[in-house]
Amino acid sequence: MSRRIEDYLEERKILVERALEKFMPRPSGLAGDVIRAMNYTLFAGGKRIRPVLCMAGAEAVGGSADHVLPVACAIELIHSYSLIHDDLPALDDDDFRRGKLTNHKVFGEAIAILAGDGLLTLAFNLMTRYGLEGKVEKKALLRVIDLIASAAGYQGMVGGQVVDISSEGKDQDPTVVEYIHTHKTGALIAASVTAGVILAGGNEEEVKSINTYGQQIGLAFQIADDILNIEGNSSMMGKEIGGDEERGKITYPSVFGITQSKQVQRESIDHAIEALNSFDERAEPLRDLARYIIKRKA
Amino acid sequence: MSRRIEDYLEERKILVERALEKFMPRPSGLAGDVIRAMNYTLFAGGKRIRPVLCMAGAEAVGGSADHVLPVACAIELIHSYSLIHDDLPALDDDDFRRGKLTNHKVFGEAIAILAGDGLLTLAFNLMTRYGLEGKVEKKALLRVIDLIASAAGYQGMVGGQVVDISSEGKDQDPTVVEYIHTHKTGALIAASVTAGVILAGGNEEEVKSINTYGQQIGLAFQIADDILNIEGNSSMMGKEIGGDEERGKITYPSVFGITQSKQVQRESIDHAIEALNSFDERAEPLRDLARYIIKRKA
Repeated sequence: MSRRIEDYLEERKILVERALEKFMPRPSGLAGDVIRAMNYTLFAGGKRIRPVLCMAGAEAVGGSADHVLPVACAIELIHSYSLIHDDLPALDDDDFRRGKLTNHKVFGEAIAILAGDGLLTLAFNLMTRYGLEGKVEKKALLRVIDLIASAAGYQGMVGGQVVDISSEGKDQDPTVVEYIHTHKTGALIAASVTAGVILAGGNEEEVKSINTYGQQIGLAFQIADDILNIEGNSSMMGKEIGGDEERGKITYPSVFGITQSKQVQRESIDHAIEALNSFDERAEPLRDLARYIIKRKA
Repeated sequence: MSRRIEDYLEERKILVERALEKFMPRPSGLAGDVIRAMNYTLFAGGKRIRPVLCMAGAEAVGGSADHVLPVACAIELIHSYSLIHDDLPALDDDDFRRGKLTNHKVFGEAIAILAGDGLLTLAFNLMTRYGLEGKVEKKALLRVIDLIASAAGYQGMVGGQVVDISSEGKDQDPTVVEYIHTHKTGALIAASVTAGVILAGGNEEEVKSINTYGQQIGLAFQIADDILNIEGNSSMMGKEIGGDEERGKITYPSVFGITQSKQVQRESIDHAIEALNSFDERAEPLRDLARYIIKRKA
């Protein structure tokens, strides 16, 4: 399984990289600095898990990976923007990510804030242009844009980030860590795979099942991140490990311990795969991806 | 004229306030702080010029103000987000706006950054939901969302803000001040009125003319802002005046002098009104608004 999913991930990742290259503006003109900063973090070596999930979602209901690329890439832009803003001195104050200096360390805080704003806004351009080219059913697209905006906004990622920050140094509260995980990471991961299914014309039952799948792997993914922050190898992670504990962050392992966290992770993966019961072999990459998530090392 | 346009502005502003109250979430739950911060700046006493322009654009081609309210309000959310981020210590570092403490002075930098992100994202939710409710032609709506995202993004407002900041203390260059004005303020103002015309089913010629109108009043509006920053009354402006000069900002008056700036302003208003030549009396509020812009005192 491991070899198969790694090949799948690599193939889909190449599609994403090519499409991102095509969609992104080249630095030019008076505002060239902000375009340079936008490209810097977007091409700083991400795993492209979210766009791959979007494509795998489409494929699971008979759609094609190519067809959903503009939305898949838009989601990656949103993810990149969130990394730039999360790393800012006022938020997590991180100097390194994926082994490279963070955006504000290279371009300064002002440009970093604006580069994040630019990526978030451009994500919506990618999606609307895709619709205006007439390549997708407009109602499905509007539904997907709405879903992604909700997953990214105060109802999702922004909300999770607020609670993550405001809970630093506070009591280790299970309700809080669950809120952070489902909102900060889970919401956009679930939206990624669900968007693929909606765009490929999946029925309401498929949309519902895939959303459950997305929420469950999102939880497993964030727990994996938390565990890697404790057990990981800092050269593979590209940043210092142990940062969460130092900051008094509320994480899954800090609230539940590593053993129970790994147990929850395994259960989430089981629930995710269960949610795909009514899907046929075209959902095999999604099943493999779920198992792969808890095995990653960086 | 002055009385008539003031009544018009007041009536439309009430529609906007009511709609914003309806659309905005109430602070609740663990992420209540960010919702509170989003509402704080959105309801800090803006003039609602952009949403009123959107409504007046729709009315100029026979549409109704009510019909375009979700998009008009979305534009105001985007404007509010831009104010929050512009005021941040890493950017303009302003403590007051409209006589009130700026967002980061009340909620802290982290929440202010995230509140801006939340408003920008929610703006897209307002627009997509409007489309999903089936109240507007979906292709027109996608075109409008694309237009607004371009006006807000690196191609528009974000680009203008980058150049505004990076040119502080540099040579007074006419090309630079024109770039800043057309991008930082002009783009979203032009998009506001153009969005109204597109949503109300205006033809391509009307869309083109109204876009020229919007660009011209956008320029006049920003020059008015620059002049008020020199000549204005700080209690009416709700912030300290003279800040631009102190920071070495490149503004219209600093490059061209006040006399020539006022001349350019008058010409812009003439061009704006000329662009409305083929429109009938339903465009009267737009003509009045153009004249009103250079008379405002705060």
